[in-house]
Amino acid sequence: MSDIFFSEVMGTAMLTLLGCGVVANVVLPRNKGFNSGWIVITFGWGIAVFAGVYVAYRSGAHLNPAVTLGLLANGSDFVGATDTTAAVPPSFPTALVYIAGELVGAFIGAILAWAAYKSHFDEEADPGSKLAVFSTGPAIRSYGWNFITELIGTFVLVFVILMFGKTPAGLGPLAVALLVVGIGLSLGGPTGYAINPARDLGPRIAHAVVPFRGKGGGDWSYAWVPVVGPIVGGVIAGLLGRAVL
Amino acid sequence: MSDIFFSEVMGTAMLTLLGCGVVANVVLPRNKGFNSGWIVITFGWGIAVFAGVYVAYRSGAHLNPAVTLGLLANGSDFVGATDTTAAVPPSFPTALVYIAGELVGAFIGAILAWAAYKSHFDEEADPGSKLAVFSTGPAIRSYGWNFITELIGTFVLVFVILMFGKTPAGLGPLAVALLVVGIGLSLGGPTGYAINPARDLGPRIAHAVVPFRGKGGGDWSYAWVPVVGPIVGGVIAGLLGRAVL
Amino acid sequence: MSDIFFSEVMGTAMLTLLGCGVVANVVLPRNKGFNSGWIVITFGWGIAVFAGVYVAYRSGAHLNPAVTLGLLANGSDFVGATDTTAAVPPSFPTALVYIAGELVGAFIGAILAWAAYKSHFDEEADPGSKLAVFSTGPAIRSYGWNFITELIGTFVLVFVILMFGKTPAGLGPLAVALLVVGIGLSLGGPTGYAINPARDLGPRIAHAVVPFRGKGGGDWSYAWVPVVGPIVGGVIAGLLGRAVL
Amino acid sequence: MSDIFFSEVMGTAMLTLLGCGVVANVVLPRNKGFNSGWIVITFGWGIAVFAGVYVAYRSGAHLNPAVTLGLLANGSDFVGATDTTAAVPPSFPTALVYIAGELVGAFIGAILAWAAYKSHFDEEADPGSKLAVFSTGPAIRSYGWNFITELIGTFVLVFVILMFGKTPAGLGPLAVALLVVGIGLSLGGPTGYAINPARDLGPRIAHAVVPFRGKGGGDWSYAWVPVVGPIVGGVIAGLLGRAVL
Repeated sequence: MSDIFFSEVMGTAMLTLLGCGVVANVVLPRNKGFNSGWIVITFGWGIAVFAGVYVAYRSGAHLNPAVTLGLLANGSDFVGATDTTAAVPPSFPTALVYIAGELVGAFIGAILAWAAYKSHFDEEADPGSKLAVFSTGPAIRSYGWNFITELIGTFVLVFVILMFGKTPAGLGPLAVALLVVGIGLSLGGPTGYAINPARDLGPRIAHAVVPFRGKGGGDWSYAWVPVVGPIVGGVIAGLLGRAVL
Repeated sequence: MSDIFFSEVMGTAMLTLLGCGVVANVVLPRNKGFNSGWIVITFGWGIAVFAGVYVAYRSGAHLNPAVTLGLLANGSDFVGATDTTAAVPPSFPTALVYIAGELVGAFIGAILAWAAYKSHFDEEADPGSKLAVFSTGPAIRSYGWNFITELIGTFVLVFVILMFGKTPAGLGPLAVALLVVGIGLSLGGPTGYAINPARDLGPRIAHAVVPFRGKGGGDWSYAWVPVVGPIVGGVIAGLLGRAVL
Repeated sequence: MSDIFFSEVMGTAMLTLLGCGVVANVVLPRNKGFNSGWIVITFGWGIAVFAGVYVAYRSGAHLNPAVTLGLLANGSDFVGATDTTAAVPPSFPTALVYIAGELVGAFIGAILAWAAYKSHFDEEADPGSKLAVFSTGPAIRSYGWNFITELIGTFVLVFVILMFGKTPAGLGPLAVALLVVGIGLSLGGPTGYAINPARDLGPRIAHAVVPFRGKGGGDWSYAWVPVVGPIVGGVIAGLLGRAVL
Repeated sequence: MSDIFFSEVMGTAMLTLLGCGVVANVVLPRNKGFNSGWIVITFGWGIAVFAGVYVAYRSGAHLNPAVTLGLLANGSDFVGATDTTAAVPPSFPTALVYIAGELVGAFIGAILAWAAYKSHFDEEADPGSKLAVFSTGPAIRSYGWNFITELIGTFVLVFVILMFGKTPAGLGPLAVALLVVGIGLSLGGPTGYAINPARDLGPRIAHAVVPFRGKGGGDWSYAWVPVVGPIVGGVIAGLLGRAVL
């Protein structure tokens, strides 16, 4: 169990270090990648997943409570993105360990991203841009539709990961990484595609903790959307996967 | 037969959910990917194919009537992008089942993309941009040359897919995805590269059905081009593939 | 021998159809990919190579006289990008067959690209932009330095392809495609990276032949640079590869 | 030993030829890739690594003193990115040979990049832009935070490379290349991600040597940051990898 916990901590920390990092590069002033666009954001997050999966290979590299709960709902013996590991299929108690590790890791990674971009956080910029490095927010605030968008995006993530187990292509973590790039390109417009409660909540807490100039609020009224939407989407994917596979 | 039908429905729905989704992200106002350019469109559609092929692996993942008819014309025992599946080579009756599943799936996926972008469809924008989320249209209207462009693009798609069967590289669905990215980059300029009758017609019907503010017409006078062009291109590729392989 | 000829014709036609196509998309007005930038150009050409290699797998997929002559100078039994085919190592007579096929194919592919973009060639645009769809030209005209740039770029191409044979990664044609993307990104700035005499000369002849509005000259005074530079670079790579491998 | 030396010289020369080359293309005026953005820079450097790893496959393709010293600190029998080669795990004397080869190679590659872009170096441009082709520099000068950023980026590089050895995906050098793309996207904003002492120091010396119009200083006061930061990051990664694997 502690193996699972530390593996998910390290993998999810790698995920948010690189993921929050790419947003910082694009939205914080004076960066070399400032304003470099959506293709940079989406490939950055995709490779963040790629690296995170390798780091957490021992625990099946969930990195995401929606994946953990989707696999639990699915009930198969599929153990995650690194199918060849010694990880065990999630049960309810192990799911709690996974989720705890994911949250702690996501928090730590965001702190490291803040450290890497410290000087840029102290530049003049909109507090909303600085929050965006940590957490997602809606382009058009509408809790119902934002929830639907997060649900659909996470459904795609978990359902296609389940499919990867059925027709392996020898791509390993690259397949998951490309899928995450695609979800960002195709479904990331309205909400910034959290598609992962830990990825959103852990860094949102980090935002409250780290010091930098010109910090605004954490938009906590929105915070339930990227938690509940992904969980519902992941569980539906797990159940549908059980029905059709 | 119902296995084939449902597999193609699900795979093609994944294709147009992600494919129409990326167009929505780029052309509908206030999206985080708004105006992010052709590289985003083409990689988005490429990964849409990548995900769709995994979802429809049981039926060989045609996802496209031009592929189905091209394979039928080819007459080989090649069964589609996921060559290792239990799918059977297409006969005329199974081809009809494939095509029905592709059309239904393409329709469903477009509805889901609309749901994911609902708030953005209700923003002010040119009705033509909103239609572009669903269906292709010509940059310069010229039915003859538009037909030629769609024919050439689909010829490349089907002919190279046939070649993949001859020199496998262990890339599986990634090879098809990259090919579709390339066709978009290289031949997508004049018509927006439908290269797939179902991908264009299914969402065009969805456009007529879903409610949103400021909807224009469906440009049905153009609708035959992305249906007939791809079919002719796919069949030529199948026949030429038979001659040269 | 006729097998080799037709295989190289088809593969090189696929190469210039997609390669000239992506330039047309980016530089000809009113295209959906107009002005979409260097990343589109380089990935377009990379995937053009990817597709071309599959199409010409039977002959080892040289697609490029500089590769043919580099392999000849190398003298190894390495037969090209698709190392598992029935192709034979090039001798002087087969090299001539390869080169003839490459030139004919490159001409045909450029004609097809012109057909796919016919309406856009008839729009108002600088004759230089229209020539750029077919052939390369220097950013700063300086025959000596342009020659050096083409030599270095082609050296990288042929030398690394030789290395691929020593440490295969299961990527097959994707490795060559990525290499060509990289050469474009890194060494394409000054001359537009012909790195292939056939890719430049065949389409330059096609430019002289096809009809379109507002056609300018073919800049034949420059035409020797993208022929001789790549040949010298490829032969040096072959000889150095023989020395160090 | 001389095998290792020459292999690392050639591989690191390929790395900086293509890596410095892509910066030249983007920052030097009148290039076809001028101002083409961060996605071009990061993919260019990623494929530079891809090609360099193939060229130096015989020596395990360190290409980077931080990798060499990280592997030494790790003390495992892991020999670098090309794990299947005949290379030996680094000892202290071989580490010196590796590092010498990396520095010499990085210098040579930068000279070749200068040759490929000679005409563009003679155009009017900010001396800082011309230096940027060779060496990295901080977006916001702050030696402490710049050091932290280089340390974190190199930690990610070396730690994830160590993880690649534990869960191979058949991607070979492509995995390292994608990782380097991701580090650039996600952590390259503040310092331009040297993450490699040789990549920075070798070309900085080359900058002092080659002739071109309008050359400024080499910013030697910053030069220790991209040397020491990566070494510390790599060694920490090696030690942590020993603890957790």
